[in-house]
This record gives sequence, C-alpha cells and structure tokens, in this order.
Amino acid sequence: MIGVFDSGFGGLTVLKELLKLLPEYDYIFLGDQARTPYGNRSQEAIITFTEEGVNFLFEKGAKIVLIACNTASADALRALQAKYGATKKVLGTIIPAVEQALQKSRYGRIGLIGTRSTVQSGNYEKELEKLSAIHWQSQEKKAQKKPTLIAVPAPLLVPLIEEGWLRRPEARMILKKYLMPLKHANIDTLILGCTHFPLLEKEFARKMGKNCRIINSGKVQAEAFVNYLERHPEIEKTLSHEGKREFFTTDSVAHFQNLGEKFLGQKMKTVAQVSLSSTS
Amino acid sequence: MIGVFDSGFGGLTVLKELLKLLPEYDYIFLGDQARTPYGNRSQEAIITFTEEGVNFLFEKGAKIVLIACNTASADALRALQAKYGATKKVLGTIIPAVEQALQKSRYGRIGLIGTRSTVQSGNYEKELEKLSAIHWQSQEKKAQKKPTLIAVPAPLLVPLIEEGWLRRPEARMILKKYLMPLKHANIDTLILGCTHFPLLEKEFARKMGKNCRIINSGKVQAEAFVNYLERHPEIEKTLSHEGKREFFTTDSVAHFQNLGEKFLGQKMKTVAQVSLSSTS
Repeated sequence: MIGVFDSGFGGLTVLKELLKLLPEYDYIFLGDQARTPYGNRSQEAIITFTEEGVNFLFEKGAKIVLIACNTASADALRALQAKYGATKKVLGTIIPAVEQALQKSRYGRIGLIGTRSTVQSGNYEKELEKLSAIHWQSQEKKAQKKPTLIAVPAPLLVPLIEEGWLRRPEARMILKKYLMPLKHANIDTLILGCTHFPLLEKEFARKMGKNCRIINSGKVQAEAFVNYLERHPEIEKTLSHEGKREFFTTDSVAHFQNLGEKFLGQKMKTVAQVSLSSTS
Repeated sequence: MIGVFDSGFGGLTVLKELLKLLPEYDYIFLGDQARTPYGNRSQEAIITFTEEGVNFLFEKGAKIVLIACNTASADALRALQAKYGATKKVLGTIIPAVEQALQKSRYGRIGLIGTRSTVQSGNYEKELEKLSAIHWQSQEKKAQKKPTLIAVPAPLLVPLIEEGWLRRPEARMILKKYLMPLKHANIDTLILGCTHFPLLEKEFARKMGKNCRIINSGKVQAEAFVNYLERHPEIEKTLSHEGKREFFTTDSVAHFQNLGEKFLGQKMKTVAQVSLSSTS
C-alpha cells in the first residue's frame, strides 16, 4: 500500500490528486486530527508526532509513505529519513515544490508562504540552495543571479480556510496583508507551502498578478510521485493494485469524515479511529 | 497544591488572577500546548485529553484541580466529576460564569461567545436552566421572563489573539461579524466563554455598548474559587502555603515559556515538559 500521512485535513487534497493520477494502487491515509494543526508547535513536538504517524502507516503495511503536510515535511522529514535509512522510504513535499519552482521561475525570485513552523525551519532555503546547482543551469538562467527565497509565515490562513471564510472580505484583507512583502520583493514564483492553500489558489493568483507563477505544493507532490515510481520499479513492484482505500484518524470518525470528504471530494468507506501515544 | 489545567495558554490568565487573590498557596499548572487548541475537536477527544491532564495534576500532588478552559469544562467536567466522585475535587469555568451572569443580568437576555465545541456542548444552557431556579429570584427579576441564552461560536478569535492581531482592522471586522447576532438579540449580558477573550475585553465592551455587561469567565472563576475555599475549610486545610509555583507543558519548555510569560504577566521559574499518552 501507499501510505499518506497528514497532520490534519489538507493532505487529503494530495491524496485526491494521487487517486486521479494513480487510481489502481491501494492507499492508506492517516490524519492526526486530534493534534492538528502542527504549524505553531515546537520542532520537537512535530518530529515526535510525525514519527508516530509514519510508524503507524508502516506497521499497517505501507511500503512507502508520503508526508502530505509541509509543516511535518519541513520539520521532521530529514530526521525520519536518517532514522529509517534505505529500508523504509519516506517522501515529503519540499523537494518537489522547490524543483518545480526552479523550473518555472524566470529570474530566481521565489516566494514561499506557509505556516510559522515551515518558514522558521529554514528547510525550503536549504533545499533551494542544494537544488539550484542542478536545476538552475539553462544558459538563459545561468546568466541570472542565484535564486533567492523570500518566505512569509501566514498562520491565520488555515483557520480561515477551515472556517469556510474563503471569499469573505476579511479573508481577502488578511491575504493581502500577508502577500504585501512578497509583492514588494517582486517575486516571479510563489510556492503555496501548505496543503490548505490550494483552496485559495485563485485569490493568490489574482493578488500576485500575471507575472507570478503559483506552485501548488500538494499537486506537485502527487505529480512527482508518478515520476518517482517510474524511476523506481523496485518500489513500484512491491505495491498492491486492488484499488483499496483505508482511512485512519486520531479524532472521532464522525468529526474526521464530515470535513474530510469535502477535502477529498469523495466518500470514505473504511474509516477507523486510532490512538497514537506520545513517547517523547 | 492547587492544580490548574488548561488546553493551552489562556488558563494562565486565570492563574494570574488566582496569584493576585490567593498568593500564599502553592500552585501547579499544566498546559497541553502540544494538542492545543481543543475548541474544534470532538467531545470524545476533549474528554480523553482533559482526563489525562487532570490525572497528571493529581498524581503530582494537587489536592483540587481547576479546569481553566471553557472548552474542557463544557465537554469534560461532568464526566470527570462523575468519575472522581467526592474523593477528588475538580472545578470548572461554567457555573461561576453563569451565576455571575444571572446576578448581573437585568432582563435575562444572556449572550455567550466561545469556541465551536463550547457552544455545541449545550452545557451553558443546561447550567443556566438549573441555576436560574436559585439565582433568578429577586422580586424585580421574578417579574421578568425566564432567562435565555444566545450562544455564538467564534473560532477565529483564538488564532487572531495568539497572532497578536488584536487591534488590527481585520480583527475588529471579524469580531463585529461574530457579535452581530448578539446585538440583534439585544442581550444585556455577555459571557466571554473562552479564557483568550479577556484580551479583547475592551473591544467587546465597545462593540456591545453600555447597556451590556461583560462577564470575564476567567476572572469570575478565580473569584469564585476564593469564595469556594471560604465555604470549604476541609479542603482549604489540605492546601500547602509555601508560595511554590510549578509549570508543566506537553510541548517544549522554550515554546511554552515564550508566550506563557506574556499571558501570566510574570516569569516562570520551574518549567518542565511532560508527556501524556492517549489511551482512549
């Protein structure tokens, strides 16, 4: 099975894309609704919670796990990859988003908007630094300065989105305020570094204008995974193909299913509650 | 020791009031920062988390525990009181707030603003129904209709307050929107049913006008506790008087202390991290 982990609901938009692109595989999803959102917690707590979630998915039979949450990817992915080594594969959201941004950007002025924890982790900067060496090499682009990242934390957008206040003037004013420093920095590419933000994608595009490309990190993660399986037949062949979908939540099933089916855009048949214990 | 439990930071404003009114006692505080906020979770999750927190405080030597969180009080207090019986005393925020509202209200049109879970629990209505029989009995008041409660969930106020956006126009617009139905219902008393909201008390008062009394549930809880100790010398005599203050958090110490000292209005000397396990 393909495991998908999220701190809450946003990762279901990644799963939705995966089900479109790769419907034949079996999926197991875990959302840590009882402890969501991770975005304002310490890195220490985020690592512990993410590890518990990912361990659960492997124990349930996942052969590979996608962390469909920018906060968990930014804070915990490297720690988990170091721990599991080559035996258990865990993929995150950051590398695909940065690769895509480097390909789409014309002048290397890249913006990032995400939770406080994602921005503070500095991991988007680190990946940009590394990946620039590989992806910033076309003749035209080489002539430009090295790519830079301007990162803005936007902690109020997740609650606004979960409230369904997307189109209200208050939400637009708050969005405008968050985007101000990115507009002033004249970025040409904006990474939506939180799986909730695609729900506001049109508003982001309108506010940033035509000259700024928008990178939807969840969609990009799903597309990158298609590519990953093509490049890794040794992993692809371990995956089962019965079209199964199993959902787990750390809060009550009713609470999860209610909002979750809206994010996923379809019904969830098999849903169960699970208890993860803090062992930090 | 006197135990004080909160789902996050807001309960520190209750402790602040307690330290003013009853500085001579010893206090132990636990904030569940790793799983805060509780306000949008299922009742089931809130009961489990609150029970874990309250158990921890009793194990650490608390002789009585105050739940300084409206969400936890609304969803979990009765379950815990039923479980502990007379052996372990647990007090919440709702009864003191409702008693105060009944005393201050002239016409019995009482408003409540709180988290989604607090409002959905219906426990403020239940307490109002019960306590009206005792507290709505002056001649003048008896002539009035039975008191009624108009409750409004305001889930965006906690993140706005934690962001420090209190005085920004966006916060005012959102507050105005939430208060609209309460204005229309012409309430004469408003219960601030969340320990974060006192930080916006002036804005609430200004928006609601002079004819509406504002009940700060945290402050009222602290005042009611002074009264409780006077009426219960058998509990008062079990409490130690060395002026000790111990703080525990489920997230990292640095993360807690940073914001926590702002809520408390003073330095925290003894702070430690603790791990509560979900055993639901």
